[in-house]
Amino acid sequence: MYLHAQAAPADTPIPGLKHATWAGGDEGLTQLSVWRQTLAPGAATPPHRHDCDEVILISHGSGELHVGGRVMPFDAPVTLTMPRNRMHQLINTGDTDMELVGTLAASPVQVHLPDDSVLALPWRT
Amino acid sequence: MYLHAQAAPADTPIPGLKHATWAGGDEGLTQLSVWRQTLAPGAATPPHRHDCDEVILISHGSGELHVGGRVMPFDAPVTLTMPRNRMHQLINTGDTDMELVGTLAASPVQVHLPDDSVLALPWRT
Repeated sequence: MYLHAQAAPADTPIPGLKHATWAGGDEGLTQLSVWRQTLAPGAATPPHRHDCDEVILISHGSGELHVGGRVMPFDAPVTLTMPRNRMHQLINTGDTDMELVGTLAASPVQVHLPDDSVLALPWRT
Repeated sequence: MYLHAQAAPADTPIPGLKHATWAGGDEGLTQLSVWRQTLAPGAATPPHRHDCDEVILISHGSGELHVGGRVMPFDAPVTLTMPRNRMHQLINTGDTDMELVGTLAASPVQVHLPDDSVLALPWRT
């Protein structure tokens, strides 16, 4: 219940995105989710927002954070902080996999698209 | 505001514990804090609890998690999940530094000791 192996990210239906849920509801949490993800070169998340704070720890790779009409390039190692309900998009502009851990202050996590619809996540949260 | 360098953990008044706040209130968050810590061989946190969920990602080292009267040994890499208000203690029983990232579903974070007093943290949350 307290100790958990760290599963390797596995393919998802989202092109170029591998995912492993490291912590969430199945681990007895209601306020916190931790996701381990890999974004392939050229791949991007959809523009989206969460109704909770998010912190993304980038351990490998290079990319761009798009938020509020701004484009912010970054290189690992770097921490991205995203206050809740801020629309954002993450793009791997490098030529190697981007490796990251995303922490979100909710479980389950809701993902809203720009048209305010809810994206059904293909993994447990 | 969105991108932040990852500071190396620095000495704190708690023996054997180095700390760097990677994300919290100063980064515009109200629901999430991310702490990077190093625990020296033989060092331990005090027994404590938070009134929020916590996830600890152990990247290097070996230790014990004490919770609910149980002693759970672990070796990195491993994820520790701690539902809110569960009293727990982390001990480095190995002979190398324990390296970890702690994520907590609050900002600021409150730390309660076994006598229910609040531990004044020597770092920003």
